[in-house]
Amino acid sequence: MIVNRLPRFEPLSDEALALIEAGVERLASEVGVEFDHPQALELFRGAGQTVDGSCVRFDPGFLRTQAALAPAEFTLRARNPERNLAVGGEHMVFAPAQGPPFVHADGVRRDGTLADLEALLALTQLTDALDTPGRNIVEPNDVPLDVRHLVRSLASIRLTDRVWAGEPSSAEAAADCLRLAEIVFGGRESIERAPVLFANCNVNSPLRFDSRMLAGILAYAAAGQAVIVTPFLLMGAMAPVSVPAALVQQCVEALAGIALVQLVRPGCPCVLGSFLSATDMKTGSPAFGGPESALGLYASGQIARRLGLPWRSGGGTLTASPAVDFQAGYEAMNTLGAAFLAGANVCWQSAGWLEGGLVTSFEKFAADCELLDLMIHQFAGLEVDEASLAFDAHVEVGHGGHFFGAQHTLARFRDCFWRPTVATTDNFERWTRNGAPDHAARARARCRELLDAYERPPLDDAVEEELLEFVERRAAELGDVVEVRS
Amino acid sequence: MIVNRLPRFEPLSDEALALIEAGVERLASEVGVEFDHPQALELFRGAGQTVDGSCVRFDPGFLRTQAALAPAEFTLRARNPERNLAVGGEHMVFAPAQGPPFVHADGVRRDGTLADLEALLALTQLTDALDTPGRNIVEPNDVPLDVRHLVRSLASIRLTDRVWAGEPSSAEAAADCLRLAEIVFGGRESIERAPVLFANCNVNSPLRFDSRMLAGILAYAAAGQAVIVTPFLLMGAMAPVSVPAALVQQCVEALAGIALVQLVRPGCPCVLGSFLSATDMKTGSPAFGGPESALGLYASGQIARRLGLPWRSGGGTLTASPAVDFQAGYEAMNTLGAAFLAGANVCWQSAGWLEGGLVTSFEKFAADCELLDLMIHQFAGLEVDEASLAFDAHVEVGHGGHFFGAQHTLARFRDCFWRPTVATTDNFERWTRNGAPDHAARARARCRELLDAYERPPLDDAVEEELLEFVERRAAELGDVVEVRS
Repeated sequence: MIVNRLPRFEPLSDEALALIEAGVERLASEVGVEFDHPQALELFRGAGQTVDGSCVRFDPGFLRTQAALAPAEFTLRARNPERNLAVGGEHMVFAPAQGPPFVHADGVRRDGTLADLEALLALTQLTDALDTPGRNIVEPNDVPLDVRHLVRSLASIRLTDRVWAGEPSSAEAAADCLRLAEIVFGGRESIERAPVLFANCNVNSPLRFDSRMLAGILAYAAAGQAVIVTPFLLMGAMAPVSVPAALVQQCVEALAGIALVQLVRPGCPCVLGSFLSATDMKTGSPAFGGPESALGLYASGQIARRLGLPWRSGGGTLTASPAVDFQAGYEAMNTLGAAFLAGANVCWQSAGWLEGGLVTSFEKFAADCELLDLMIHQFAGLEVDEASLAFDAHVEVGHGGHFFGAQHTLARFRDCFWRPTVATTDNFERWTRNGAPDHAARARARCRELLDAYERPPLDDAVEEELLEFVERRAAELGDVVEVRS
Repeated sequence: MIVNRLPRFEPLSDEALALIEAGVERLASEVGVEFDHPQALELFRGAGQTVDGSCVRFDPGFLRTQAALAPAEFTLRARNPERNLAVGGEHMVFAPAQGPPFVHADGVRRDGTLADLEALLALTQLTDALDTPGRNIVEPNDVPLDVRHLVRSLASIRLTDRVWAGEPSSAEAAADCLRLAEIVFGGRESIERAPVLFANCNVNSPLRFDSRMLAGILAYAAAGQAVIVTPFLLMGAMAPVSVPAALVQQCVEALAGIALVQLVRPGCPCVLGSFLSATDMKTGSPAFGGPESALGLYASGQIARRLGLPWRSGGGTLTASPAVDFQAGYEAMNTLGAAFLAGANVCWQSAGWLEGGLVTSFEKFAADCELLDLMIHQFAGLEVDEASLAFDAHVEVGHGGHFFGAQHTLARFRDCFWRPTVATTDNFERWTRNGAPDHAARARARCRELLDAYERPPLDDAVEEELLEFVERRAAELGDVVEVRS
C-alpha cells in the first residue's frame, strides 16, 4: 500500500464539474435506477424516494446525502496486520486481474485452472506492490461453479496473508465468504467492528442492478464490509458515446448502490467504482488504454474527491492487445498512469490482464508488477534539499568530467535509481548473445524465478482446520466434493 | 502542431523551486561554465562576467536577466505556410528520432543510409502528428561525413514542406545550412526578419561548451534563428545521481548557452532544452522511460515556465529496449506522457527511437506516430456541455438496454472515439486467423502502406535548381561528388 505523493491531475473546470453534477441530479430524478430486489425497493420507499415498479427515482440531493454517510477513509484488516489496508485519502491499493476465464502460461492459451489460480496467488504474495489478491485472478474452470467461491476464498486465505475479496453475486456465496472471514478473524462481531473484506459489485448498466448482485450488496452491507459499487461502462454499449455522459451515468449508478448500502447500514465503508472505456465502433470490441478512458479516469477522480468518497479506478494495466507487445505496454502504462495521476485509491486489474480481460497472462503479470513498481517510485516524488542538490559533487567533478567515480556517486550508486528486473538496458551485442529475449520472454523467466522462491505464509493450524471443515461441509451441502487438503 | 489543452502537472512546491533556483545561482557563480571559444569568452567578458581562463563565472541574476531577453513565444516559418510552427505557450511541436547511426528495417538492423533517411522523411511528411523532420532522423552512413549536412538539409527541403533543423556542429556547416534556408525563403534579410530554422545545440556536460558547438550557436544566433540549448544529462555519467542536482546543472548549462545567444543578438528565439535520464548503475548503460526521467521532465517544465522560456523535453518516445516490445511501449508512453503533462513545447525524438537512440526503427516509427496521435487526442481535453451530457440518449435507452442502436450513437459512431490503425481490438480467433501479428508486425505493414501513398510536396523549380547547384558546388569544394538529382 503506497501513498501517492504527487499532486492530483484535474482537467475539469468547476463549471464542467457543476454541469456534470447537475446532470447526475437530472438523470437520478427523471430516469432513475432499476433495482430488481424487493428489499432494496422497500428500503428506498422507506427513505421517501419515488418507487415505480422496480424503478427508483431519487429526490434531488438524496444520493449525495446518503454518500456523505460513508467514511472518506477506512481501514481493512488483513490476517497479517502489516498488510492492513488504508483505503481513501492519498493511499493506493492494488490488486491483480480479476475474472478472466483463460490463462496464458508458457506460451499456451487455455482455460484457467485452480493450479493456475494458486500460482497467481503465490505471485501476488511474492509481490510487494500488490496489496490484495482480490477475488479471482483467473477462473478455476476445473472446480464446479457452485463451490468456486469457497475454493477461491480458501486459496486466497492460505496462500496469501493479505486482505481478500468476497463473492458478491449471490446471497449464499456472500454468506459463505462472510463465514470464512469470521473464522479467520474471530467471529461476526469482530468483522462487523472493523471490516476485513472487499466486495466489488458491478452494476447491470445502464441504470439497473440485478437481483443476484443486490443480494450480495445487501449481505456485505449488513455485515459492515467494504462495498465497491462499479459501473462497468463501455461507451457505445452500456453508456452513450460521450465521456461526459458516461461520467454522469457512472456517478448515478455508483451513488445509487452506495445509497442502498447506507440505508442498510449507515457508515458502512463504500468505494465509488469506475470502469470506463470506449468500444471500437468498427468491431464492437472493447478498447482499453486510449484517450477516452484516460480522460474518464482523470475526471472520475475529481468527481469522487468532491463527493468525499474513496475511488476505485477501472484499472490497472488494461489492454485490448492479444499479446504482451508494444500495444500492451503503452495501453497498460496509459491506464495505470491515469490512475496514479487521478489519485485512485483502489486499482483492481493491475497485473496480468490481457485481451480485454479475457486472459490472465503470467508474462504480463510479471511485466505489470514491474510497471507498478516503476510508477510507485515515480509517484513517491522528489525530495529537494541541500543533500539532493549535491553541490559538492559539482565542485569535485568540475567541467567536462564525469560522475561515475565521484564520492557522491560512490556513496549512492546502489539505490540512487529505480532498478528494474525484467526491463533491460543491455546493448545489442549482449542482448543478442543472450538469445535476444523480448520483454515477454524475460517476464516469463522472472515468473519462474519468483515461483521457485515462494513459501506459504504461516496460518494458525486450528483456524486452517476450521476453514477446511467449513469448506468441505458446504461443498457437500452443495452436492460437490472438493479436494482442499493438499 | 497542437495546443495542449489539459492543465500542467507541477509536482514541485514553491519552496522546492526556490531551492533549485538558489542552487542554479550558486553553481553558476561559484563553479561556472567552460566555453572553448574566444568569441564567447569575449562576449561574456564584455558583459562584465568573471572570465578565468576558459571558465566563466556568472554574477547573481545575470543568466536570468539574459534569458528574459528571449521571447516567450515565437513562430518558425515553413516553406508551406500551413506548416508554420508556433513555439512556446500551450503549443507542442514534434519531431522524430534524431541522430541514430543504425536503422532497423524489415527485420534487419544495419547501418543507416540515405535511402533510409529519405524513406523516413517521406513518413514524416505523411504524418500529421509530426511537425518537423528535425535534422537527421537517421545517419546516412553512405554519404561522406563532411557533406552530410548538405545532403540531409536538401532532402528535408525536397521531401517535406515542414520546418527543418540546421547543423549545429561547425561554423562551415551552419553557414551552409543558413544559405540553403536563404535560397528557400528569399535571402538573408528574410530569414533574419522571421526565423525559419531550428538549431539544437548540445552541451558538453558537465558545465562545458566545446568549440564546434559554440561555433554553431554563434552562427545561428547571428542569423536570428531558433537556438535550442540542450544539456544531455545521464545522471551518474554527465550529472550527479540525483534529480534535483541534475535539474540545477541542466538549468545552469541551458541558461549559459541562452545567455550567450542573447549577447550575440538580443531577442533571438531560444528554447531551454532538457534531456535528463538515469544511468543503469549495474551496466553503465543509459536507461529511459523510468521514474527519474519522468520526474525530471515534470520539474523541467515547471522551471522553464518560471523562466518564461519555451521548453524542449528530452523526448519523445524514448526507450532503452532493443526490440519494439512491451518495454518499448511503456517506456515510450511514460516519456511522452511526461512531456504532455509537463507542457513541453518542443518534443524531439518522438518517433522511431529504439535501443537508447542507437537505432531508428521503421516499426517503432509507425507505432510511435500512433502513440503521438493518441496523446494528441487525450490532451485535447473534454468538452462538457448539454450536447455531450446526452441526456436524451439515456431517456431513449432507459434501464438495462444498450446504446449500439441509439439515435445519439448512430449520429456519432464514426468519430466519437479515437481510431487507431496499428493497435488492434481483434478477438483472439480473428487475430490468430490473421497470423497473430504483434504490434511491431502490424506497424511494419503500416509503414509500407504509408510509403506507397507518398508524394513529394511541390517545390518551385527555380528554387530547387538553385538548391541543387549550391549543394553540388559546396560538395565539390569539400572534395566530394554527390548525386542529388534523382
